Amino acid sequence: MKQNTVTIGVIGLGGRGRSLLGVLLDMADVNVAAICDIQADKLALGIDKTKEKGCTDIAGYLDYKELLKRDDIQGVIIPTNWQTHIEIAIDVMKAGKYAGPEVAGASSIDELYTLVKTSEETGMPCMMLENCNYGRDEMMLLNMVRMGVFGEVVHAQAGYEHDLRSSITMGKFERGHYRTDHNFNRNGDLYPTHGLGPMAKILNINRGNRFVSLTSTASKARGAAHYINEKGGDDHPLKGLEWQKGDVITTVIKCAGGESILITHDTTLPRPYSRAGRLQGTKAIWMEDNASLYLDNISPAHEWESVDKYREQFEHPLWQDYINSKVQDDHDGMDYLVLSAFAESIRNQSRTPIDVYDTAAWMAITCLSEQSIAMGSAPVAVPDFTNGKWVDREEAPTGKYAL
Amino acid sequence: MKQNTVTIGVIGLGGRGRSLLGVLLDMADVNVAAICDIQADKLALGIDKTKEKGCTDIAGYLDYKELLKRDDIQGVIIPTNWQTHIEIAIDVMKAGKYAGPEVAGASSIDELYTLVKTSEETGMPCMMLENCNYGRDEMMLLNMVRMGVFGEVVHAQAGYEHDLRSSITMGKFERGHYRTDHNFNRNGDLYPTHGLGPMAKILNINRGNRFVSLTSTASKARGAAHYINEKGGDDHPLKGLEWQKGDVITTVIKCAGGESILITHDTTLPRPYSRAGRLQGTKAIWMEDNASLYLDNISPAHEWESVDKYREQFEHPLWQDYINSKVQDDHDGMDYLVLSAFAESIRNQSRTPIDVYDTAAWMAITCLSEQSIAMGSAPVAVPDFTNGKWVDREEAPTGKYAL
Repeated sequence: MKQNTVTIGVIGLGGRGRSLLGVLLDMADVNVAAICDIQADKLALGIDKTKEKGCTDIAGYLDYKELLKRDDIQGVIIPTNWQTHIEIAIDVMKAGKYAGPEVAGASSIDELYTLVKTSEETGMPCMMLENCNYGRDEMMLLNMVRMGVFGEVVHAQAGYEHDLRSSITMGKFERGHYRTDHNFNRNGDLYPTHGLGPMAKILNINRGNRFVSLTSTASKARGAAHYINEKGGDDHPLKGLEWQKGDVITTVIKCAGGESILITHDTTLPRPYSRAGRLQGTKAIWMEDNASLYLDNISPAHEWESVDKYREQFEHPLWQDYINSKVQDDHDGMDYLVLSAFAESIRNQSRTPIDVYDTAAWMAITCLSEQSIAMGSAPVAVPDFTNGKWVDREEAPTGKYAL
Repeated sequence: MKQNTVTIGVIGLGGRGRSLLGVLLDMADVNVAAICDIQADKLALGIDKTKEKGCTDIAGYLDYKELLKRDDIQGVIIPTNWQTHIEIAIDVMKAGKYAGPEVAGASSIDELYTLVKTSEETGMPCMMLENCNYGRDEMMLLNMVRMGVFGEVVHAQAGYEHDLRSSITMGKFERGHYRTDHNFNRNGDLYPTHGLGPMAKILNINRGNRFVSLTSTASKARGAAHYINEKGGDDHPLKGLEWQKGDVITTVIKCAGGESILITHDTTLPRPYSRAGRLQGTKAIWMEDNASLYLDNISPAHEWESVDKYREQFEHPLWQDYINSKVQDDHDGMDYLVLSAFAESIRNQSRTPIDVYDTAAWMAITCLSEQSIAMGSAPVAVPDFTNGKWVDREEAPTGKYAL
């Protein structure tokens, strides 16, 4: 029997849900009490997963509202699709449980306000499970910034640059693959948070700083149609049709502290994977794509140095600890760490390191990007979901998984 | 005696002017007849340069209008400062000579219209001497795009990322160093053309395509003040003062063909040099910062390959020729090639590969960037200096130095 456990439910058992379920089942201090999917075949796959891990007492539900009735469940992770995870998170909080929606962007500012107000009214935390906030480089950067290595931070870049043409165009059309649907019908940065989340923490967004406004620009949409032409065969249901989402979406956010953040969404052209990271301050610059740092007055003049050269000096303590732990997951430790952070917050009955204001501000970039593009890249204001509290909020939660 | 020469004058003998003068003096088919600077000490340095190269018959002028009276001079290069080279170029064309202003951005759309109309009325070409259009990688990319290797081009990135803190803050203040003045007083992308020019040619700007609109966002300005604090001593004349130009200026241009172009200006923070190049099409991506290419269906899936691997296959013919020539200059061949292009156009009495519409459209980005930033990143329209002729213009000039 596991000791000192928190009890968690899982709603959403697609590939991502089952992957996270596997990580949770391996965690010594987490007890998965119930799982749920609206589709019976996915629920069955989830049950199979629990049996693989030697668990025979985990309940399965088709209706998440049944799962939410269970008093033993303290927190629920919600790896459902982009259109349902916010409304489910709202119901989770209303049921008195910690809500952990997966990453993505919102479709409207309204649904985010409902999310925020539900958290405020119920007192229940909502933590978007942004695993990239727990990435090794991202945490090392956070550590370096807090140590002052970058001086005053001035500019950040991030993004989601991932050749998903196969997934986007070759999904299971009988059901409506969510990536296909969104890319076919919407034009905006559909997936900003992997890159933006870590930079938001570095820039103290919602605690002394906030996103003020943004502009967004879409290139033409050619990648998906080209890919279908080349690989989709004659019977592809979308052959010859025009996609709405531009191949490269470029969004520039201005922050209250004067920093600019460039965000790129790039998932329908051929390319190697990148989160397009870059961070610049008065004393240093980091760039992901060449895995390099340049520290003023330290690095040889005008020459990049490898990030690895500074790994030992600046590694985040959480990552030092993680490497020693020898735990592994599907995403280089990030899934394990973000789930551990969620579980620890429940165990301590504390606030979560990524909170409902972060969740709302980060997810808002998607629908605001759509709005700006729709208006010819006009600047749009980012709502202040904290209602002014960002200027002087209470201290961030502390603890091992603090951000 | 040089044979088959063109006769050129040089107006502006600062460091850049003397460097270009040296290249011209070495060219077998160019005759430098006269040089000019408004400052006697710079003129003397220019005369010294000509003597170093064994020339004793080159006239020196303090008043460029005197130089322009000479009938023997066919073309004039104008490496003067950012505020004078356009008005001098206008006078050069009015004097019936080819005008070759150095790179930079314009202060107003009006001065660019005057430049364009003067060229149209006099029939004299104006070629901004954008040496980076003749860079090795830039020309290889142009060659690859024309060969179809990138498929349909969708998105480009470029910029000027150069740690110029010393030059910007430690200039000779007794005279007003132009970099200092512009950075201290203006907020916009002051120097867009090194990165933008090559991408404009790749995207067929002004011949079937054009820049339609842009947004621009400035980060806060911290780098120059920080540098002065750190290295300027107690008596620095700008100590403690606030600079206008944000450290990182991010501009996004939308083109008539649907392409987006991201332009970055980044000269007051610590960093190694980059022109921030990136080019994406339906079949390939190139990135400068890791010197990499990825060719769809050719490169190993999701893995970058070195640009050098494809050098032999895709090198531009002009560059193959240049490497065989063993000529050298201060800027890796680019100065020699751009001056050769200017001289060849004069010799052939043909149009220039970079013409007055290119010059105007590229330089316009500076003042339009200022306008957008001043209006909270509002989109601003880029004027069509061709008056609609971009849709179906005559063929571009051909020849060895064609772009």
